[in-house]
Amino acid sequence: MKLKQNQKLLFIGDSITDCERVKPEGEGLFNALGKGYVSYIDGLLQAVYPELGIRVVNKGISGNTVRDLKNRWQEDVLEQKPDWLVIMIGINDVWRQFDTPFIKEGHVYLDEYGDTLRKLVTETKAHVNDIVLMTPFYIENNEQDHMRNMMDQYGLVVKAVAEETNCLFVNTQEAFQVVLKELYPAALAWDRVHPSAAGHMVLTRAFLKAIDFDWNQH
Amino acid sequence: MKLKQNQKLLFIGDSITDCERVKPEGEGLFNALGKGYVSYIDGLLQAVYPELGIRVVNKGISGNTVRDLKNRWQEDVLEQKPDWLVIMIGINDVWRQFDTPFIKEGHVYLDEYGDTLRKLVTETKAHVNDIVLMTPFYIENNEQDHMRNMMDQYGLVVKAVAEETNCLFVNTQEAFQVVLKELYPAALAWDRVHPSAAGHMVLTRAFLKAIDFDWNQH
Amino acid sequence: MKLKQNQKLLFIGDSITDCERVKPEGEGLFNALGKGYVSYIDGLLQAVYPELGIRVVNKGISGNTVRDLKNRWQEDVLEQKPDWLVIMIGINDVWRQFDTPFIKEGHVYLDEYGDTLRKLVTETKAHVNDIVLMTPFYIENNEQDHMRNMMDQYGLVVKAVAEETNCLFVNTQEAFQVVLKELYPAALAWDRVHPSAAGHMVLTRAFLKAIDFDWNQH
Amino acid sequence: MKLKQNQKLLFIGDSITDCERVKPEGEGLFNALGKGYVSYIDGLLQAVYPELGIRVVNKGISGNTVRDLKNRWQEDVLEQKPDWLVIMIGINDVWRQFDTPFIKEGHVYLDEYGDTLRKLVTETKAHVNDIVLMTPFYIENNEQDHMRNMMDQYGLVVKAVAEETNCLFVNTQEAFQVVLKELYPAALAWDRVHPSAAGHMVLTRAFLKAIDFDWNQH
Amino acid sequence: MKLKQNQKLLFIGDSITDCERVKPEGEGLFNALGKGYVSYIDGLLQAVYPELGIRVVNKGISGNTVRDLKNRWQEDVLEQKPDWLVIMIGINDVWRQFDTPFIKEGHVYLDEYGDTLRKLVTETKAHVNDIVLMTPFYIENNEQDHMRNMMDQYGLVVKAVAEETNCLFVNTQEAFQVVLKELYPAALAWDRVHPSAAGHMVLTRAFLKAIDFDWNQH
Amino acid sequence: MKLKQNQKLLFIGDSITDCERVKPEGEGLFNALGKGYVSYIDGLLQAVYPELGIRVVNKGISGNTVRDLKNRWQEDVLEQKPDWLVIMIGINDVWRQFDTPFIKEGHVYLDEYGDTLRKLVTETKAHVNDIVLMTPFYIENNEQDHMRNMMDQYGLVVKAVAEETNCLFVNTQEAFQVVLKELYPAALAWDRVHPSAAGHMVLTRAFLKAIDFDWNQH
Amino acid sequence: MKLKQNQKLLFIGDSITDCERVKPEGEGLFNALGKGYVSYIDGLLQAVYPELGIRVVNKGISGNTVRDLKNRWQEDVLEQKPDWLVIMIGINDVWRQFDTPFIKEGHVYLDEYGDTLRKLVTETKAHVNDIVLMTPFYIENNEQDHMRNMMDQYGLVVKAVAEETNCLFVNTQEAFQVVLKELYPAALAWDRVHPSAAGHMVLTRAFLKAIDFDWNQH
Amino acid sequence: MKLKQNQKLLFIGDSITDCERVKPEGEGLFNALGKGYVSYIDGLLQAVYPELGIRVVNKGISGNTVRDLKNRWQEDVLEQKPDWLVIMIGINDVWRQFDTPFIKEGHVYLDEYGDTLRKLVTETKAHVNDIVLMTPFYIENNEQDHMRNMMDQYGLVVKAVAEETNCLFVNTQEAFQVVLKELYPAALAWDRVHPSAAGHMVLTRAFLKAIDFDWNQH
Repeated sequence: MKLKQNQKLLFIGDSITDCERVKPEGEGLFNALGKGYVSYIDGLLQAVYPELGIRVVNKGISGNTVRDLKNRWQEDVLEQKPDWLVIMIGINDVWRQFDTPFIKEGHVYLDEYGDTLRKLVTETKAHVNDIVLMTPFYIENNEQDHMRNMMDQYGLVVKAVAEETNCLFVNTQEAFQVVLKELYPAALAWDRVHPSAAGHMVLTRAFLKAIDFDWNQH
Repeated sequence: MKLKQNQKLLFIGDSITDCERVKPEGEGLFNALGKGYVSYIDGLLQAVYPELGIRVVNKGISGNTVRDLKNRWQEDVLEQKPDWLVIMIGINDVWRQFDTPFIKEGHVYLDEYGDTLRKLVTETKAHVNDIVLMTPFYIENNEQDHMRNMMDQYGLVVKAVAEETNCLFVNTQEAFQVVLKELYPAALAWDRVHPSAAGHMVLTRAFLKAIDFDWNQH
Repeated sequence: MKLKQNQKLLFIGDSITDCERVKPEGEGLFNALGKGYVSYIDGLLQAVYPELGIRVVNKGISGNTVRDLKNRWQEDVLEQKPDWLVIMIGINDVWRQFDTPFIKEGHVYLDEYGDTLRKLVTETKAHVNDIVLMTPFYIENNEQDHMRNMMDQYGLVVKAVAEETNCLFVNTQEAFQVVLKELYPAALAWDRVHPSAAGHMVLTRAFLKAIDFDWNQH
Repeated sequence: MKLKQNQKLLFIGDSITDCERVKPEGEGLFNALGKGYVSYIDGLLQAVYPELGIRVVNKGISGNTVRDLKNRWQEDVLEQKPDWLVIMIGINDVWRQFDTPFIKEGHVYLDEYGDTLRKLVTETKAHVNDIVLMTPFYIENNEQDHMRNMMDQYGLVVKAVAEETNCLFVNTQEAFQVVLKELYPAALAWDRVHPSAAGHMVLTRAFLKAIDFDWNQH
Repeated sequence: MKLKQNQKLLFIGDSITDCERVKPEGEGLFNALGKGYVSYIDGLLQAVYPELGIRVVNKGISGNTVRDLKNRWQEDVLEQKPDWLVIMIGINDVWRQFDTPFIKEGHVYLDEYGDTLRKLVTETKAHVNDIVLMTPFYIENNEQDHMRNMMDQYGLVVKAVAEETNCLFVNTQEAFQVVLKELYPAALAWDRVHPSAAGHMVLTRAFLKAIDFDWNQH
Repeated sequence: MKLKQNQKLLFIGDSITDCERVKPEGEGLFNALGKGYVSYIDGLLQAVYPELGIRVVNKGISGNTVRDLKNRWQEDVLEQKPDWLVIMIGINDVWRQFDTPFIKEGHVYLDEYGDTLRKLVTETKAHVNDIVLMTPFYIENNEQDHMRNMMDQYGLVVKAVAEETNCLFVNTQEAFQVVLKELYPAALAWDRVHPSAAGHMVLTRAFLKAIDFDWNQH
Repeated sequence: MKLKQNQKLLFIGDSITDCERVKPEGEGLFNALGKGYVSYIDGLLQAVYPELGIRVVNKGISGNTVRDLKNRWQEDVLEQKPDWLVIMIGINDVWRQFDTPFIKEGHVYLDEYGDTLRKLVTETKAHVNDIVLMTPFYIENNEQDHMRNMMDQYGLVVKAVAEETNCLFVNTQEAFQVVLKELYPAALAWDRVHPSAAGHMVLTRAFLKAIDFDWNQH
Repeated sequence: MKLKQNQKLLFIGDSITDCERVKPEGEGLFNALGKGYVSYIDGLLQAVYPELGIRVVNKGISGNTVRDLKNRWQEDVLEQKPDWLVIMIGINDVWRQFDTPFIKEGHVYLDEYGDTLRKLVTETKAHVNDIVLMTPFYIENNEQDHMRNMMDQYGLVVKAVAEETNCLFVNTQEAFQVVLKELYPAALAWDRVHPSAAGHMVLTRAFLKAIDFDWNQH
């Protein structure tokens, strides 16, 4: 298990991370962590490693792109002084190019995406214990699908940044593919983006594997 | 893994099981399984064993005692024809004796509890593949606490019934005790009964261990 | 223009037809026809052919399959005594096989779909002026996509029934394909099923062409 | 078709234009364009000319007169940098003289109306590709009706401004008259102002004819 | 003053009478009489003739035609045993012919209107002290307007029935015409049917004059 | 009739005047004048003297004392430039001394009441055509009742100010007494302060008599 | 203390008793006893005599007269099998004669009141341990006030019935008079009927004195 | 009785004091004092000592610790100029250490608690007649329970401060223990913190005893 006693673990991202978390805090009782994978991870960390006393904070905001993360980075990441930082961003950066193709100022193209992500990670790396970079994903089997194809390219950028900066890397698309061999996308997400409980469990397990969480301890 | 291809797994119980599930169906899309351990189990089964195609149904109803289960057994269990049946009942049977001590017709004492549970299990055993009996629990460390003490006795009855009828048995109280060594009850449940996400993960893991679920498969 | 003076035109179908229509009437003032293609068609008929006095009735109900139509056929079609009947059904018949694959009693397979549709059309044909059969559709470009592929098969059944029974036929999938050459599915429908205004205009135009509506009259 | 590839088409006006559009943006998914003629026009442009990629923006605000447009012109028109601008204003300028005759500061008389409209059009003409001027209207057959009569005079001013400034002109009153020969005003609008779906289709068709939209293309 | 000590005065009609009255009673405290002319009349009777102790009951129901009155006559009129009965009906009988011209089963034509009204009045006359017949009205100045013209014919039928049966008669259209000489219809009713406070005062005064109410008593 | 062509009549006061009027305007369509005596007066002025074109404005605010009026006098009276001003204030000045006797900073005693009212009237008299001063009232028959007794003293101050400044005077308490001879207070107001429709008609008639309104004109 | 170990104490009455209790049960957790004197009495009994285990049930229903109690006596009193019964009724029996004087079928006059109350008490006396009769009250100092005067007469009837049947008697009017010497009615109840917390404490103390409750025990 | 004529009694604390009081005032009619012990005390003071005219103010705010009290002390205590001040604080100071153990900045440890409380009391003592210090409490019988044990230590600090500063002292934990001998915690508070009516009566009686309130006066 990579997390150590009393560390603070902060997640930042878009609606997949947000999931109706309490704002602005993003931590505390009564579903303050939302209903998605962040809450599941927090629940499993407390249930399986209660002795570690890991503090989980959710700073996801629906609709965010990497450009939005940049604008709130100082307040929502640096000032929070996390020990571990988890970033999953990029779905809206891609999606807006497909669902509102004519509103171009809402699109974040690959160059801006990569540059911004790299800059945020680089300038934060020294202040935290470690950073986990999770790829964006698209719950679609067909790799030739235009949006899936572009999402894969954004995922490759995440992978590249993780390697350059020596961060932990989680390939969420790959994790979903295991399930998509058996289930049609509509069974996991009504819009191929916002996952059901099963989809959030896919994310949960992908993250926990990356930090060497042991389901069978105790 | 004890569950087989295309089996139907039905949970019945009280508010811990219910967790705002959709009524009357208790299955389907859009959080139809509620927000608690049943939804977590369903999510993990689909995420980790998508090839099995397990169908999960939630028939929990808030406030129920074993007496209420008896009254809706025909409709909510037998007519559903599940392959696997999971029963977690008894918290309200005990709780009403403590929170409304003067309203005695709402109390279900140990004898009635045991007799009713045994009867339901016995008459159903032949119609299903298997039954999992989960004890009721009370998120309180002090074994001398009156309500904890009584809950433990109800748990012993569940264990006895499981042994007599050769059902799978899950000791939820024991599962909670691992966490209660580290965390005060208020961190897991505001009223020592209704668990947080962490508490539902405790239940989830306890159940999944009983059916030989393998977190690391795939 | 195929519709004649004072004829009654009744639409029956699922949520695409329903679109928040007023129930049970499905006609009248104040958005009684809902917000979708039925309302658009009614608006265009009144705007362009006010002298015809066409009466439009919407009997769509969200979530319906052809099995549900059969159950309410007497009340919602035959007793309404329409002059023209328009049927667009089948999306849920297919969708349930993909989004809730384990709940098999909700699936309507191709045989039942075709038999039921043929029977309803056959027994109604004599009581109305004419019937328009519109295919179900799936807003997805990839013909190898499993759900698109199955939807196409259901569409072929509709076409066959139309030919056998000599009904007017509208290929809605084909109509969508013209737009899908230019726009990604997410721009037309968040779930590839429930269309935006543009999608409803595609349906509107496909239907109106079938009845020889002339946009340029007056 | 007068609109060209990737042009931005901005509508400004009163409640007829507004129709519950999302504010302040007036564009995007999920009915951001409202429920009226702007949404219909956007739907038809995407459905029939998807290859053009026309971007439609709705800046209507309920209750506005030309005086209100002047006050928000910089922000809601000039800064939006549209390629095409469509203005339909004047109904409230007239209506307030009839429904609240004693509150005179709410009335915008013909001189102010004409001067303001002319000034707005003149100073904007150079910054856009073209401007479409739509007359206000009153859904009343009787030309001697006081309010209809005054509305016709405001319409003549719009026509004059269009001619002076060489803008496209749409006579909405004339378009409604075709339908009013057949239908009583109450069938088109409960208050002779806010149209039903049929009334919005009248506006839609009148506008689309002015820009040489071809219903039958594709 | 025609009303005598302790008499019960019952109003029946459509939405003009209803005005959000409490149902089913239509009398009592806290705006049980609604917000329209019935409430005004009750207020003035109590304010000016408190010594009479007149009991006012409102049995108006929105959307009613004379056909609806017939269906609830036994329960809402005869069983109430009023001393005075006031009937104002016919607006919807006419309006439906104009706002939903194609839904013909909702139209109540002149013959049915007259026959039904005459029958209700005739069979009730003997059981009450007296009946007041108020004409329906349409807040439109132009007598050639189709709907105004038809409403006048229905009013003539009311007058005829009043004369045949020797009932008190109130010409509400005539009462409105005094005000319509000065004010445009939109100042009195947004849809030419549902009056503002001023319109309800017109009805109030017209009724009170008919029963010889003296504003200046006390 | 004392009011002349096109005059503006402004009412200011407490909750009896307010009656859910629209804020901040206090005039316009759709019940902007509230549901009380101001709306009734406006309705009767339009119904009986439509040719005068009187503009009525309601600036009552619930809970106000004369101290509150002073604070908003510039904005809500002087800047409105009314031709006629009607003031009815004082009920809360007295009531707070009885219902919350221990919260003394909320009490406005007789001296402050009289001085403030006199000052407001004096400094406004020259800017308006005329001022009507209406006494506060208490719907209680027993003159020895402590609160009734004090209210009478506040009423005497209003009368004195009216005489000193030569304003029109309306004795609302006296007007209520006529009705209170016949009806118990609970029939007119649940709390002896907020009147039913009958009570508002008492106020309406008392005011209209003071300005020589003629019920029988036309 | 007159109440003994484990006795059941049932209150029946009108809105003063009801106070938003949970229906139909009228007992249990989460304010099931409402917010008035019944809840206060229950709270004090548990707080001061927890060893007695008194079970309190609230069967008050807003608006009830003694005639309504008679209609639900079997279900709400006899079938509940209380040990102690407390009845406080009569306020609405009197009030309706004053606030809706013309609706005479809602009035319960003194004879019917006395006869009904006597009959209910007499037929119930043998089935319970004891009955407490509480007078209705009116929070008004002036004994000559018509409604206060009549309420006093109803109170005398209650006293007479208590004496005849040998029940415990509580004079609530007398209890309020102690406070009314110091506070004006409006400080205790906005409508002289529905008491503030202070008023409910008056009722609480009057009842508890009658059963020899000792504030200072423990 | 320690309270004297016309004194102002101010309560400050956390949610136990707050109980949905009206903010910001915390006094006045219509449940402005909330639904808890402050309202009960106010009711009893008015009911039993109406001649004293005690003014009660509630300044409790849910979730507050002593650190929060310090931040609003100037505005909510000193500027209110109370004659008597009652402080009950500390539950959240302790609770946060148990229910959110990892969010350490929300914990107020014993030293800070004692120092802050002492400072607030010391600097306020001279400005008021007297101060009553009430201990925080935890409705749990087991003195070895970690949270009960810590709460007892905070209570000892309150006692020490009361002795040092010569304030009145109320041991609420001791008061609850009398009841807890008979009733299980769940009967008094669902979370061992927020009391039922019975629990609030325990607090009420404990406070009133400290100020020599005499239940039997009058």
